[in-house]
Amino acid sequence: MQKINIPLKDSYDCFVGEDLLKISGEIIKDLSKAEKIMIVSDDVVFSLYGETLKDSLKKSGFITDSFVFKNGEKQKNLDTVRNLLSKMIDFNMTRTDIVVALGGGVVGDLAGFTASIFKRGIKYVQIPTTLLAAVDSSVGGKTGVDFSGLKNQVGAFCQPLAVICDTKTFDTLPYKQYICGAAEVIKYGVISDSKLFYSLKETPIKENYENIVSTCIKIKRDYVLKDEFDLGDRMFLNFGHTIGHAVESLAGFSLTHGESIAVGMAIISSKAAEKGFCEEYVKTDIISLLEKYDLPVSTDIKKEKIAEAVSQDKKTKGDTLSLIVPVKIGECKIENIKKREIKDWI
Amino acid sequence: MQKINIPLKDSYDCFVGEDLLKISGEIIKDLSKAEKIMIVSDDVVFSLYGETLKDSLKKSGFITDSFVFKNGEKQKNLDTVRNLLSKMIDFNMTRTDIVVALGGGVVGDLAGFTASIFKRGIKYVQIPTTLLAAVDSSVGGKTGVDFSGLKNQVGAFCQPLAVICDTKTFDTLPYKQYICGAAEVIKYGVISDSKLFYSLKETPIKENYENIVSTCIKIKRDYVLKDEFDLGDRMFLNFGHTIGHAVESLAGFSLTHGESIAVGMAIISSKAAEKGFCEEYVKTDIISLLEKYDLPVSTDIKKEKIAEAVSQDKKTKGDTLSLIVPVKIGECKIENIKKREIKDWI
Repeated sequence: MQKINIPLKDSYDCFVGEDLLKISGEIIKDLSKAEKIMIVSDDVVFSLYGETLKDSLKKSGFITDSFVFKNGEKQKNLDTVRNLLSKMIDFNMTRTDIVVALGGGVVGDLAGFTASIFKRGIKYVQIPTTLLAAVDSSVGGKTGVDFSGLKNQVGAFCQPLAVICDTKTFDTLPYKQYICGAAEVIKYGVISDSKLFYSLKETPIKENYENIVSTCIKIKRDYVLKDEFDLGDRMFLNFGHTIGHAVESLAGFSLTHGESIAVGMAIISSKAAEKGFCEEYVKTDIISLLEKYDLPVSTDIKKEKIAEAVSQDKKTKGDTLSLIVPVKIGECKIENIKKREIKDWI
Repeated sequence: MQKINIPLKDSYDCFVGEDLLKISGEIIKDLSKAEKIMIVSDDVVFSLYGETLKDSLKKSGFITDSFVFKNGEKQKNLDTVRNLLSKMIDFNMTRTDIVVALGGGVVGDLAGFTASIFKRGIKYVQIPTTLLAAVDSSVGGKTGVDFSGLKNQVGAFCQPLAVICDTKTFDTLPYKQYICGAAEVIKYGVISDSKLFYSLKETPIKENYENIVSTCIKIKRDYVLKDEFDLGDRMFLNFGHTIGHAVESLAGFSLTHGESIAVGMAIISSKAAEKGFCEEYVKTDIISLLEKYDLPVSTDIKKEKIAEAVSQDKKTKGDTLSLIVPVKIGECKIENIKKREIKDWI
């Protein structure tokens, strides 16, 4: 097991290793005086790991209840938040009780947000059960739900009490979700860690979960510490995402998040090489690693359509746009461009 | 005009004085790079002061829109939050835009909470138009809405960008609301400031708004600085509230919040004198000052019923209860009692 501290104002630890679910009760007991714990999960994950978690929490003396909703991003909305709040009130939870999110990013975002507004904020624990959630959403304190067709429009910055990442739970991931997480891992390699990047070629991620997840969490931590509220430096974490998000929504969500950002990373790397921001090998290495993980590196969607969707992205301010561009493997730079120039980058 | 700084992590100022509404645009312009401002208000307050505020904001170059809901606590719920969020999205607000709450506590709580969750938090400005909101809810960063019949069950701690308190707006307060604010002012006198307390006897609050509101804000500030997240010292601000809340709900809301806490303060002061926590004059002075402001000092509701309601209060932990008890005018102490002892205090 590895333990990574995130030294924000409310400092917390991320525990990464095999079979942590079984000792999650003990881990939480050490951190909290809660009497009650509400387990929040989706039906797919809960049927696989709900009982193990419940047993562990009970063994440590917690009284538990669970709120299980239908798997999928569609449920990440204010109606589900409201149902969860009702259940928490019926369970008579107080301000010292806690919520445990057992699942992927949807579960973590929704449970974290609901905890952050219940009685003006109670603590929550992230137990990510997907590679993507483990390296991405479970660290950093961004919580929220979709609203009015827009992603994460409503939410809060609220750091968890702890992140418990049991890498054994990744064994049941469908292949599509595995490679979706792989795309984010590759991203971390490109933006900050060439050693990580090249190791992914030698050893498949699934054979080295504990080390790789820990490395990614440390990289994310460093960006989050520089920029807790996502006002600047966290931008580097968006490598591949600006174009990726546009591709994701234009593909009508037939591509996963990971597949879409893989396309985004491939496109931007090709253009970076073409424009002389990096040497040719940078592009070639990125594309071949993406392909090794069966991730797509191009799309049939027309350049103009992507450009239009990018310029409507919520993260753009006025008529400029910040692109994250690779300089070499392990280093990127921010390139501010005019919105009308975006098609030159696709 | 008086300016009181609240030096929390996100430090902010409270501006208190006559006719500040007319210069609110300038005040906000100095503090914010927002382009757009959503004015949130209720129908009663907006009809009185909406145009003045809008004019001032426009004069300072802001683009404004407004969200006006029906006056009353009944509207302080998640449905109204959702409607406001929709309006904010339609208005295309970004993370640097702001919300201005124009009204009493209901408006401030609802607008502040909605701002705190929109795109994971945008800034808001409090413009309290009641004496109660000015001295109580507009400072301290507690925001929230009622849920499932329970007050403020859902909310956030989120400090405003500024508080602009135009004491001229109190001139249109109905008498009932004026004395409701007076009850909270008297509370501040009892817990921390004998000079304030005795001045209220000589000069009616309404003849000295600027000084009195400023004094109360400073007192509240000092408690908030010691205890931003309401885990300990803020408890003193609950003088009269534990019993008051019980009376308020048992009276079926036929008593205002201020009238209920007046009853609460009178009851607890009488018992404090009886039990020897304070001298007799403390009780007499408190009761006669409450009466001077036409506030009730007793209730027909049965002792047993009040005791039962108190023991169900959400602020109680386990089987103990913290009561705030006067020691002298300007000083209170925390008295921890068993829940079953509460009827001895009524």
